[in-house]
Amino acid sequence: MITRGSIIAAHTRIQPYIHHTPVLTSESINKIAGCHLFFKCENFQKVGAFKMRGAMNSVLQLSEEDKAKGVATHSSGNHAAALALAAKLQGIKAYIVMPNNAPEIKKKAVVGYGAEIIFCEPTLAAREATLADVMAKTGAVFIPPYNHLHVIEGQATAAKEFFEQTSHLDIIMTPVGGGGLLAGTALAAKYFSPETIVFAGEPKGADDAYRSFKTGKLVESHVPNTIADGLLTTLGPINFELIKEHVHSIITVDDQQIIAAMRLIWERMKIIVEPSCAVPLAVVLNNKEAFENRRVGIILSGGNVDLGNLPFSSI
Amino acid sequence: MITRGSIIAAHTRIQPYIHHTPVLTSESINKIAGCHLFFKCENFQKVGAFKMRGAMNSVLQLSEEDKAKGVATHSSGNHAAALALAAKLQGIKAYIVMPNNAPEIKKKAVVGYGAEIIFCEPTLAAREATLADVMAKTGAVFIPPYNHLHVIEGQATAAKEFFEQTSHLDIIMTPVGGGGLLAGTALAAKYFSPETIVFAGEPKGADDAYRSFKTGKLVESHVPNTIADGLLTTLGPINFELIKEHVHSIITVDDQQIIAAMRLIWERMKIIVEPSCAVPLAVVLNNKEAFENRRVGIILSGGNVDLGNLPFSSI
Repeated sequence: MITRGSIIAAHTRIQPYIHHTPVLTSESINKIAGCHLFFKCENFQKVGAFKMRGAMNSVLQLSEEDKAKGVATHSSGNHAAALALAAKLQGIKAYIVMPNNAPEIKKKAVVGYGAEIIFCEPTLAAREATLADVMAKTGAVFIPPYNHLHVIEGQATAAKEFFEQTSHLDIIMTPVGGGGLLAGTALAAKYFSPETIVFAGEPKGADDAYRSFKTGKLVESHVPNTIADGLLTTLGPINFELIKEHVHSIITVDDQQIIAAMRLIWERMKIIVEPSCAVPLAVVLNNKEAFENRRVGIILSGGNVDLGNLPFSSI
Repeated sequence: MITRGSIIAAHTRIQPYIHHTPVLTSESINKIAGCHLFFKCENFQKVGAFKMRGAMNSVLQLSEEDKAKGVATHSSGNHAAALALAAKLQGIKAYIVMPNNAPEIKKKAVVGYGAEIIFCEPTLAAREATLADVMAKTGAVFIPPYNHLHVIEGQATAAKEFFEQTSHLDIIMTPVGGGGLLAGTALAAKYFSPETIVFAGEPKGADDAYRSFKTGKLVESHVPNTIADGLLTTLGPINFELIKEHVHSIITVDDQQIIAAMRLIWERMKIIVEPSCAVPLAVVLNNKEAFENRRVGIILSGGNVDLGNLPFSSI
């Protein structure tokens, strides 16, 4: 069970290893959106994403015996880099199973943090089989990217900090992929700012959380297709139970809306966010009546993009 | 004459109209550079550049009679947007002479701030003739982009703030184009942090300040060719006198070095800086021995780039 006390303990535990990220505002985006937006900049977090919080919280709770064996995961994204750095900071081994078509920049980041990469075919089955093999050989402990209480608890600390930094928020928003950040944020709102309503944004091309939420039944497989590469994962069952109970609504946006919101953040705020990260603002911009004049907090989830391959056209 | 008192007065004068921009650091860039870097984020300033400070300081010192006539300048860059916004905030007219090949994004910004654009051929002669014509017709007061004491005084407030935000800096650095920011920074160092040495970075393809500084004689015309589009201007004579007296050295870097430094800031700090803005870091990265273990402050001058036309290749 994740409690008020366990989130506070997680925050205390990880604080020496994470950045206390700033909350930024933009008058010009407020004017366009018609509401008061507050952006919690987890794109400035270590490894460039909130994922550092959950990975660090998990690694710090391992027994000494488990630490000696190391940690393992399969991921081609921010969780891979986060787990690699969290392990490095504790002086333990990390084994990261990555699809062999993972972007060079992601491979470089993981290697840069000293982790060992094990490549596999780019299918979920191959990833799971390779991970099982690595765990069998090394005894390493699996740290999943989202479907795990320690991970959710760690992600919850971003919203806890956000509430401490910002006076009353009517609404708090995150993107939803596997549901770690959303479930953590919903619990943090419940415990630290119960008057705040929790919304999530999801790409139309990867709307399993939206459909699961709507029908009350977890969509277990889908073929996602969206530019928001951090949200290609399927909602986790632990996450789903928490989201069902504590989230007000999930709203979807299409890739063009995501790119436009991303570009607006880049141009007006001069900060770099990845496509997944722009999903909540895209929701606001395309559903203005629902947010009119409200105080809306958005967790900017990450800023890892391939600068040589951006979705912006010349104007 | 610009004095300690006049810079303090300028700062008080413009404070209600500008952002107090943050100072950021990056452990990973420090590691690469081998020194302790502090970045004053004027890319987060209003209009996305330090230019807002000098323009605002100039507009606020106009007589009521001059305000009634309005202000004018020729610029296709950040000074144009800054003067347009400064004038708007004071409810006065602004006439901006722009070359007809100016980027759409810059035209849009100036129009967005309510200024009137007068187009001309893209030559200095045409710009000056058109400006003279506008001034004759309207009586508007010319606010030059850098060769003016009120402008230099306004730009000096960025370094004043920087010294207030950061304990002891061994070195402070800016890029140099027309020399407004550099001259202002050198004066601020003299008055508020006399132990800090002032360095400038300049593109090799627009090295008139470097050559003027070296020979002691102002290079009056040159044909610049660099990606750093904010530094295409020629050093101003007022600026040159101040720079000769108060700046320690000017160091040049080539466009590839500028792009690499710019990319490093984007990737590691997740903030957007324009090429001109990356010049000082390029100097540090390519002259490491001169900065080893020093505390080096860099004013990040601006963040206005065309996102559809970036100099990054895929990796």
